Parts: sequence; structure tokens; C-alpha cells
Amino acid sequence: MSPEEFRRWGYAVVDAIAEYQQNIEKFPVLSQVSPGEIRAQLPPHPPETGESFAQILQDVQEILIPGLTHWQSPNFFAFFPSNNSAPSILAELLSAGLGVQGMLWATSPACTELETLILDWLVEMLDLPPQFKSSSSGGGVIQDTASSATLCALLAARERATDFDSNRQGLEQNSAHKLIAYTSTQAHSSVEKAVKIAGLGVENLRLISVAENYAMQADILAEQIEADIQAGLTPCFVTATIGTTSSQAIDPVRKIGEICQKYRLWLHIDAAMSGTAALCPEYRFIHDGLELADSYCFNPHKWMLVNFDCDCFYVADRSILIRSLSVLPEYLKNQATASGAVFDYRDWHIPLGRRFRSLKLWFVIRHYGIEGLQFYVRKHIGLAQEFAQWVQDDSRFELAAPVPLNLVCFRHQGGDAVNQKILEKLNQSGEIYLSHTKLDDRFTLRMSIGQAQTNRNHVQKAWQLIQAAAE
Amino acid sequence: MSPEEFRRWGYAVVDAIAEYQQNIEKFPVLSQVSPGEIRAQLPPHPPETGESFAQILQDVQEILIPGLTHWQSPNFFAFFPSNNSAPSILAELLSAGLGVQGMLWATSPACTELETLILDWLVEMLDLPPQFKSSSSGGGVIQDTASSATLCALLAARERATDFDSNRQGLEQNSAHKLIAYTSTQAHSSVEKAVKIAGLGVENLRLISVAENYAMQADILAEQIEADIQAGLTPCFVTATIGTTSSQAIDPVRKIGEICQKYRLWLHIDAAMSGTAALCPEYRFIHDGLELADSYCFNPHKWMLVNFDCDCFYVADRSILIRSLSVLPEYLKNQATASGAVFDYRDWHIPLGRRFRSLKLWFVIRHYGIEGLQFYVRKHIGLAQEFAQWVQDDSRFELAAPVPLNLVCFRHQGGDAVNQKILEKLNQSGEIYLSHTKLDDRFTLRMSIGQAQTNRNHVQKAWQLIQAAAE
Repeated sequence: MSPEEFRRWGYAVVDAIAEYQQNIEKFPVLSQVSPGEIRAQLPPHPPETGESFAQILQDVQEILIPGLTHWQSPNFFAFFPSNNSAPSILAELLSAGLGVQGMLWATSPACTELETLILDWLVEMLDLPPQFKSSSSGGGVIQDTASSATLCALLAARERATDFDSNRQGLEQNSAHKLIAYTSTQAHSSVEKAVKIAGLGVENLRLISVAENYAMQADILAEQIEADIQAGLTPCFVTATIGTTSSQAIDPVRKIGEICQKYRLWLHIDAAMSGTAALCPEYRFIHDGLELADSYCFNPHKWMLVNFDCDCFYVADRSILIRSLSVLPEYLKNQATASGAVFDYRDWHIPLGRRFRSLKLWFVIRHYGIEGLQFYVRKHIGLAQEFAQWVQDDSRFELAAPVPLNLVCFRHQGGDAVNQKILEKLNQSGEIYLSHTKLDDRFTLRMSIGQAQTNRNHVQKAWQLIQAAAE
Repeated sequence: MSPEEFRRWGYAVVDAIAEYQQNIEKFPVLSQVSPGEIRAQLPPHPPETGESFAQILQDVQEILIPGLTHWQSPNFFAFFPSNNSAPSILAELLSAGLGVQGMLWATSPACTELETLILDWLVEMLDLPPQFKSSSSGGGVIQDTASSATLCALLAARERATDFDSNRQGLEQNSAHKLIAYTSTQAHSSVEKAVKIAGLGVENLRLISVAENYAMQADILAEQIEADIQAGLTPCFVTATIGTTSSQAIDPVRKIGEICQKYRLWLHIDAAMSGTAALCPEYRFIHDGLELADSYCFNPHKWMLVNFDCDCFYVADRSILIRSLSVLPEYLKNQATASGAVFDYRDWHIPLGRRFRSLKLWFVIRHYGIEGLQFYVRKHIGLAQEFAQWVQDDSRFELAAPVPLNLVCFRHQGGDAVNQKILEKLNQSGEIYLSHTKLDDRFTLRMSIGQAQTNRNHVQKAWQLIQAAAE
């Protein structure tokens, strides 16, 4: 493709995105296709010779877009949001166009240095503890997802607890002091996944019970740790959640942190969705006690207008993380980072190669400014609080959990079957898309308000549809 | 940003990329900045209020681009290539603009179905064994990198070897049958990293010695496995490499595969860079014996014009992989995939969230067609073979390894210090960028030819510069 053609088709794709965004409310939010329906419309075999770009774009419009569930629709209230935004999309475009690799500082210094800087900016923006800054013992890195961040935190915890012997000898040599991890019954499934991957085994993950607000019971955590020590086991890792996936419950980080300090356990904080709320001073209570944590992550790709993937992962002591994940073959040796002035981020996560993802954060933060980003947080939390009030005011419905921020868990009083039916009706209508969870083993509707374009009229319409479905 | 502004700035970024590509040879290939130099030019604190997009783009041009190492330059001969291309860049833009999540089929059916289809196309395009097709017991998935693919393969192998007890009980319960993994001394560092992460320990990774061509010695592998079994250990996993990072050596997959079948070991094939060569029938010898493998990966983001990240990972029996990586919380339960007609790809890798990466593959394959992609493979291999001849014809230089495809390992006869000096001189000149390795403990220059725009004149110029540096 010549530079002229690239410009022409580049403009066309930009136009297609602008049109998509302008028309997004015309599509059913949840795709209505059946399994296999999209594939059946596409050629079963690859083309021998090249095709026109016009044809490719036409197929996007006619075949693919009907097969999408529209995460960027203002009527998307399912799961957690996964926002993009204009500056973020353009930064992703630029990142692809520059096509640099940031695995080592030397392989593109600007890629590494911008990332370190912006991760430091975010420490200020969220008022995170100073040990997460690169100028201290710690620092931040962009991971793909919170799942990977949790895994890296667990690996660092595992190595610290075994004097880095697990990496060397393997866990099978370690049966003398069996490692135990802890989280709440409400934690994200990625904790279980990490415990499996790292070789600890799910039987050695203690799911601590939660209080009425679905937050971890710190006293029960302490009792369990004590019992495990008495049994000759080796507690090593706790994941506390700031904003659980089911109900946005906020674990008591300070109390948990004090317990972790007492027993020398690694404390990882998963604030994937909710951490963004700390952009606003009035919501920084969610981070109370964070200075006691060894690691922390939140996902700007959820609620901070940065398109997927972008998880910001911080550690208080980077040397432990790096020692846990570093391998240094000859073909990657270089002198620049020996000084310690800059990082080789390949040692901070699982993949080796890495793209220029800090561009997205930089573009978004600069375009909106702190004030602009705070606007969205306040808008969404305000709408969720209002929605919660509507639920409370309707005697057919009840809140299923407290609403600390922007997620409303609620249910019809008619029981599981009724709620399941309401959900199906709403999602099949294509007008809005909600997802569900179970709280106290009861089917619960989740109204997650965080899509950038969602305004009061969308939430109002959603509530009307929910009320209508209940009849 | 309004739709009009998005169009305006979108066009501007497209223009900036087109200009960057047209001017790329004017920049020093290896960035000449010192550690900290880029960061020092940027504001230490984030902005309170939004800034103009014009200012952001100006900073990209003036501050960031001088801090890049130009991976898309035709004079980039370091590491392995990490190509992008016009259709791939535009697909990445579209993926960011659509902003959908493909973690489950239902969260965007087209995202999952296109990925399954294109991964099937690639089985045909590379003439891979039929068990890697989704219509058989296996199937393919896009991972970020080969590092992650190798880790997933090892996890599946670990679980198969322990009847899925490692996930449940952890490896510490498993000391009765200690797991052993194998690869060659020339394998990628990601194998060591995976063995650490999965809890096996590097002491339980056997680095099998290589023959004169730096390929694994299959008979020594067999002897080692036999010895480990005799010692009461449990061999479980072999990674063979098709095109090692140091010298592009091709392990004898068929012989290794027969050994793995005999002892029931999981065989994973890492063809990250070199697999793309199999687009051309005349290079399919590299895959001889692949039908004996349990898993395979190659990276279209290296040599197939798809921008990073895009690793294609295949398994012969997807049920083992899925069982190894699946977790199913209530909030992710859905009915569509229960039928088996479509996949939930979140169970095929470590992260939960996933973006629409198959768009890049689809755009690139359709734009170039199989013939178009073959052109690049043949061009690069032809140039490398020619370069190798030039090395052999100059008595000051020697080839350091065979040149099966597009990587030439060579050195000056003057010894390590001379070669190191030549490398520094070349890279500091900014005219070309090469990297190095060690072969038989001797410092070796690597001429890796795979950047899309690299033509004969670039390779000729590189050789002239190398010859001049040698004087």
C-alpha cells in the first residue's frame, strides 16, 4: 500500500469509526447472532491473491458489525465497562504505526521512559503511596490485564517466601513449608487462576468469608493465617479487592495490611475497576491503608477512557519482582540499564516483547486533564447512586448490596426465576445489556454504570425498561 | 472530542504515520539518546486541565520520535523483525475504535468467530497438521507473545502429567513424581521463564546439548529422559525450536516427536520467528514431524507483516488446555458455548479480557493474499543467502552458523574484541542496527533480514558499512 493509499484508507477507517460511534445506539447492544452465524458468512479458505481494501471495509460493515456486542454503547451496563475514547484510539493507532518494541530500554528509550513517567504521574493522580514511584524502591509497569498483574504479584510473593528457591528448585522441593494464599470468597477468578498457574494449587487458596457488605472479614483472615501456621504451613500471599466484580465490595485494606505486616505476607491489591475513582479526592477512602500493600493494580482500560489493554501494576519493592521474573540471555544483554537509571520492563511481566502502550495513557491524561477525567467518575457515581434510589423507591425491587461507587446490585423480590427472566427479556430486546451475579446464592442483576457516553437519559431509559420487564 | 474533531485529528495521525514511514531512513536506526534524556524533556507532573491535541502531536514529533529505535526502518537488522504494515495498522485502529471485548463468545461473537476462522486459514496457509484445526480435537488462539504460549503449553503439560492434580493440590504435594522439562541450550529464554513461573524450577529444566548446526541432539535428549526416569523423576515437557533466536537453528522435530510419543511427553514447538517461512512450499521442510507435536506457535507479528502483538498458538487437544486454564465464576457463566459450537477464548490463555486481534490477521491476509506474503518471505531469504555468500567471499570474515533461512550469524576473524568494536561502531553510526549473540562462547554478529521495506540496496549498504568498520 503506497503512502497515498495508506492516507486514503486511513481516513476511511477513521470515518468508519466516527460513524460507528455516532450510530452505535441503533445496534442491539448484545449481539443477536447465533453461534456460527458470522463464520458462515466468511470464506472458508484464505485468498490466494490480494483483495481490495474497499471490499474488506465493506465486509466489516456488513458481516462483522452485526456480530458485535457493543461495549461502547451508552446502553451497555454489563460486566464492567471497557471504555475507549478518541485520544486513546488515536494513540493506539500511533503506537501501531511507529511499531517499536519496548522490551529493553535500548530497544526504544522513549517507550520505556514515557511509561515510567506516566506511571509516576498516576501515583500523584490517585494519591497512591510514594513507594510506588520509580524514584523510590518501587515503580509501575503496564500489564495487559489485572489477571497478569495478580499472577506476577503472586510469583514475587512465592519467591520472597522461599528465598527465591522456587524459581531454582521448583515447588516440589518445597514440601517442607507448603505455601498458602488468601483472598475473599468474592475475589476475582484471576486469583484462583494465578494460584493454579504458579503451582500452589487451589486447595491452598483460602477463600475468606465476607461480611454483610461482601467485604473480607479481616479477623477471620487473621484466624485462618494463625491456624495455618499452627498446622506447619507457610502463609505467603493475600489479595484484597477494592471493588469486587460481583458487587464492588471494598475489602478493609488497612486491617488486612496490618495482618500481612505482622505475619510478613505479601499483600496485593486488586482495584482493577474501582481504582479509577481515586482520581477524585472524595473517593480516596477506597485506598485507605494502601501504604501497607506490596503491590497494587488498577485498569485504566476499564473506567479511565483508555482502550484495552492497559493495566497499571505497581510494586513497593521492584527488586523482588525483577529477581522473580528476570532471565538474561546473551542476545538481550545491554549496558544502558546496568546503571539503574532506567528499567528493562521485560523483567516486570511474563511476555518479552511489549508495545508502546503508555502513549494511550499520555494522550488521554493530556487531552482530558485530571479535571476532565474526574468529571466522568463523578458522573457515573452520581448516576449509580440515583439509580439505587429508584430501586429502593420501587417496592417490587430491592438492593442486593451496598452501592459504594458505580455498580448497583439489585433484584426483583419475586425470586431467581423472575430475575433470570427479566434479564433475558432485557438483553434480548437489544435496548440495553445487563449481566448478573449471585450474592448469597441468589440471582442478582448488576447495573454497572461506567461507559463514557452514558448519561442520565440512558440510565432513566434503562430503569423504565427494567420496570416494564418486571410487569 | 466531537466526531468532527476525531476525524480531523484522526487524519492528522494517519498523515503523521505516513510521513514517519516516508522519512524513516533519515533517523539513526538505534536511538542515540542517553538514559533519562526523554523523560527530562517532559513535565514531571500531570496536567490539571486538558491540552490541545496539536500540542500533543507536536511533542510526539519533537520529543518522542528522537527517542525511538526505528524497528520499521529497512536498515534495522537487529534481534528479529517486528513488522507492521498498512493494513495491519488500520486493523489495529479499527479494533481500538470498535472497542469490543472477546473474553467470551457472547461478549462479541464476531471477535471469537473471526479468530477461530483465521487461525484455521493459517493451518492451511502453513500446511500445519489437521489436528490444529478447530473442526478437529484442537484449535488455535491468539496470544500476546510466544513467551505466553510456551507458558500455556507447559501448564497443559504439567496438568496432563499429574492428572490435573497440580492445579488442585499444587506441586508441593507432588514430590513423589518430580516433573522434568527439556529444551536445547539454544532455546529462547522464555522456556526458562515458563519453567520458573509454573513452579518446576530451573534445576528441573534440562538444557540438551546441540550439534554443530546448533540444533538439539535428539539422541542425547532420549538418553537424558531415560536417565531421569531411572532416577525416579517424571519427564513431562519438551520445547523444540524451529529457528532459534541466536542462529535460527532448526531442531529435528520428527526425531524429537518420536521420542516424546514413546515416553508420552508433551511436545511444544516454538517457531515464533521462522514459522512464517512455511507460507512457501519450498520451506515447509522446517515443519517436518509437526504432526507429532502437542502444541505449536508462531508470531505473525515478527515476519508476517502483522503488528505486535499477535502470536498464533495451536494445540492438538484443546480439552487439556481448557481444563488447565478454566475458571468459571458466576458472573461469566453463559449458555452459548455449552453446545461446543464456539469457544470462550478466556480459557485458552492467562488474561481474561482480550481485544479484537484477529482483525489484523484478516486484513493482512486479505490485502496481500497468500502470494503477496510469500513474496516477502522469498525476498528476505534470498537477500540473507546473498549476504551469507558475501561473508564467505571476504577472507576477513566467516559464517558462524549455517544459514537455513533469513538470519546470518557471522564474525570477523579477529576475535571477540574486534567484533564487539565493529558492532559498536555500526550501531553508533545510526546507519544500520545489528545485534549480537554468543555461539560456542564466541561473540557473534547477527544480520537478521526481515523488515518489510528492506531491499537489496539496504543489505548491500549494510555490508559495505560492515566492511568499512572492519578496517
